[in-house]
Amino acid sequence: MSSKPAITLYHHPHSRSAGARVLLEELGVDYRIELVNLQAGEQRRPEFLALNPMGKLPTLVDGDVVVTEQAAVYLYLADRFPEAGLAPAIGDALRGPYLRWMVFYGSCFEPAVVDRSMKREGADPSTSPYGDYERMLATLEAQLARGPWILGERFSAADVLWAAALNWTTQFGLVPKSDVIAAYIERATARPAFKRAAEKDAELLAAA
Amino acid sequence: MSSKPAITLYHHPHSRSAGARVLLEELGVDYRIELVNLQAGEQRRPEFLALNPMGKLPTLVDGDVVVTEQAAVYLYLADRFPEAGLAPAIGDALRGPYLRWMVFYGSCFEPAVVDRSMKREGADPSTSPYGDYERMLATLEAQLARGPWILGERFSAADVLWAAALNWTTQFGLVPKSDVIAAYIERATARPAFKRAAEKDAELLAAA
Repeated sequence: MSSKPAITLYHHPHSRSAGARVLLEELGVDYRIELVNLQAGEQRRPEFLALNPMGKLPTLVDGDVVVTEQAAVYLYLADRFPEAGLAPAIGDALRGPYLRWMVFYGSCFEPAVVDRSMKREGADPSTSPYGDYERMLATLEAQLARGPWILGERFSAADVLWAAALNWTTQFGLVPKSDVIAAYIERATARPAFKRAAEKDAELLAAA
Repeated sequence: MSSKPAITLYHHPHSRSAGARVLLEELGVDYRIELVNLQAGEQRRPEFLALNPMGKLPTLVDGDVVVTEQAAVYLYLADRFPEAGLAPAIGDALRGPYLRWMVFYGSCFEPAVVDRSMKREGADPSTSPYGDYERMLATLEAQLARGPWILGERFSAADVLWAAALNWTTQFGLVPKSDVIAAYIERATARPAFKRAAEKDAELLAAA
């Protein structure tokens, strides 16, 4: 019998998959990393495009199942390993807010941040998926201000997503590092899983 | 005891909530509609912003739980009423693809369609959430071509989301009505739930 882990994360530390690795560390499960060298264009190799025609990271393979898109990878993993308690179960009153904030990331936050990074206006608020940047950010900050986590007292996979996203977007000046956001990032990244993932990513880059 | 349904959908037939109403019809559950007159700006009323500070539809209220963002509303409802069989359960091999295509909608399809509707270039493919429009569309069409549904043989809540989205985006010329897409829309909208939702929406607009 093989001891090969069932879970493989196609990953590069400087990509949208950084948080997915943190989540695997939070879940405490056995996983294998497949480094995709984005600078060398490995995301356009036919073998990789067969898994994810979008050529994007993170791409997760669990046995025969392929999962792509950040929030989908997080939702999948946190439900797949319920013993870690990182997803409110179906029927829990926090399940709705959990899904809401998971989907908000790709549907509101990312489009707003992309427009901001390109220094361009968003679509008209009546049709824009995120209204306008200020409303998006105010909505997110109001939720985080309740704290300590995005669902309140309960830490969840959604915090891994948001802390990882806010960490790099504040570093790149795309999101202002308000006190609320700075404290949230600090709380999350102080967790052992964030530290382990950062150490392992540094080793991965050093060896590559 | 009150017979008021637990589920309220804040809705306008000509908005992103149109498909959410179809899903409620597919699920066969009791629900109440709260019409939000977008033309009159009712999405900016303080009572509504207290539920969803983004001022967006659909907004779903289930008892004390508020769920916003299209894919989150769909994921929530389909899991909440498992007897309808519209969500592959956690542990089912289709759960990963189901989440993938649910999240793909807001993270890839909508940003690509918004850029197209504004006649502007997307971000550089290396940072864009959707690569480029052609890749996004080709990825989606390749999945739909396997058919009859986005997960293959199994109809799911993801088809309600995609059929509703493709229906309006092809009508507005934002997505080309290829044979694959036209047949998919036709298959879905021929279902009784799509017809019932359209009839009820017409009554709602006539009465308003």
